Amino acid sequence: MNLLVTLNANYLSPLRVMLWSLFFQHPEVSFNIYVMHTTLTPEEIEALHLYIERFGHQVHEVKIEADAFQDAPILMHYSKEMYYRLLAFKFLPETLDKILYLDPDILVINRVDGLYNLPLNDYLYAAAHHRAPGSKEINQLRLNAYEMEVYYNSGVLLMNLEKQRREVVESEIYAFVQKNKNRLILPDQDVLNVVYCKRIQTVEEVQYNYDARYFNYYKLFSNGEYTMDYVMKHTAILHFCGKKKPWHKGYTGKFHALYKHYEALASR
Amino acid sequence: MNLLVTLNANYLSPLRVMLWSLFFQHPEVSFNIYVMHTTLTPEEIEALHLYIERFGHQVHEVKIEADAFQDAPILMHYSKEMYYRLLAFKFLPETLDKILYLDPDILVINRVDGLYNLPLNDYLYAAAHHRAPGSKEINQLRLNAYEMEVYYNSGVLLMNLEKQRREVVESEIYAFVQKNKNRLILPDQDVLNVVYCKRIQTVEEVQYNYDARYFNYYKLFSNGEYTMDYVMKHTAILHFCGKKKPWHKGYTGKFHALYKHYEALASR
Repeated sequence: MNLLVTLNANYLSPLRVMLWSLFFQHPEVSFNIYVMHTTLTPEEIEALHLYIERFGHQVHEVKIEADAFQDAPILMHYSKEMYYRLLAFKFLPETLDKILYLDPDILVINRVDGLYNLPLNDYLYAAAHHRAPGSKEINQLRLNAYEMEVYYNSGVLLMNLEKQRREVVESEIYAFVQKNKNRLILPDQDVLNVVYCKRIQTVEEVQYNYDARYFNYYKLFSNGEYTMDYVMKHTAILHFCGKKKPWHKGYTGKFHALYKHYEALASR
Repeated sequence: MNLLVTLNANYLSPLRVMLWSLFFQHPEVSFNIYVMHTTLTPEEIEALHLYIERFGHQVHEVKIEADAFQDAPILMHYSKEMYYRLLAFKFLPETLDKILYLDPDILVINRVDGLYNLPLNDYLYAAAHHRAPGSKEINQLRLNAYEMEVYYNSGVLLMNLEKQRREVVESEIYAFVQKNKNRLILPDQDVLNVVYCKRIQTVEEVQYNYDARYFNYYKLFSNGEYTMDYVMKHTAILHFCGKKKPWHKGYTGKFHALYKHYEALASR
């Protein structure tokens, strides 16, 4: 299975937890892990190699030079890393036809084969959108994009690299960013949602991108169906969205113990 | 490692979860599991055999006939199963010198070797007592036993079988129960605490018998030391004490997601 991660040094530790949980759920799968970065040191990359290879998987460093994306507009407060996910296809080997991108603030608690093997057909991506109350409306307003029907989360993306190479136009992305400079909050996610909203295959969020902040909301919204039992049997990707992260001090949340248990397992 | 469990049909499912978590933490250990019971059906025993043997471990049925403990006083609301733990040494093979008893409402989240290999010397048991506020005083009063310095929890017991065979006097237990008929709430635990309080080696509760109800209390009492991080790194035995169990509908608690995740893993 091809996996893409993009990160800086702050996320090395959560990345290991995410990977450990992924490997644990797929003991027979061999992973090719593409690590896209600009600022990791050779020592950090070497440590990541050692960690991942211990489990029998392959690491492929995809170093993006600091002077990449020369034509891209720069936004205050955002580094050019915002373009990594959108333009990953340019930096990955031509031989890859698809890849699964995962954020590091994720626990994999069931198998992701169903997502990875989803036929993408003409879609550029597969992703889930979050149903949390108001999120669509707020983003429609903010982005002045009333044709946007849902707001996809870009933390879990199955990428149709073959199709992206032929159809994603770099300059189109830059033009959108330039034009919307002052509206963008999560730039890559915003681009995805406005420029590519019609080209995304929707996957079920409770299964493949469960927002760990909203246990009570999911349960309510499903008339009680999405209990903890349901989540543990059906959710494959538990996503710790938002500013409060389970590896921070003082975090409290429904999945705190679960996360910390995986963190302990991953650091043995 | 020798393990003792005692149960009826209501606890078959939690038992599997407990065992799964135990096996997972000790991949290289071979377990001999003694299942002490009176009422399990041959089909239930057979299913347990299949489940445990799948992981490469041995099951030994220890069937206690309904007419055992003939001389024992019977208490209202309690079956004779209350004597299983106290008199297990009578029913286990002479060749065993020690055994670890574990309740089924437990998750093992770190290794228990340290407990199992504890030298028992002259002690009959090793156990932890719970420090939760007031528990000692309430029990002193109830049992009229002011020499009792702590109140041990009998859900995790390392048993010195060799010594017990020589020193535990069945009639003494029966006499105590007879005399205190109206005071006993958790009869076997009460006997242990009053009759054998001086013969129990204390082990650290946070490590070997962490009461899952009291995360906030432990944290407070330790001046913030026993964080979730600490628990996940140091606690080996997480005990879901009390009436509310994590496999019941409507349970909420700090370790709910963790328990349900293990339940899902154990039932694959």
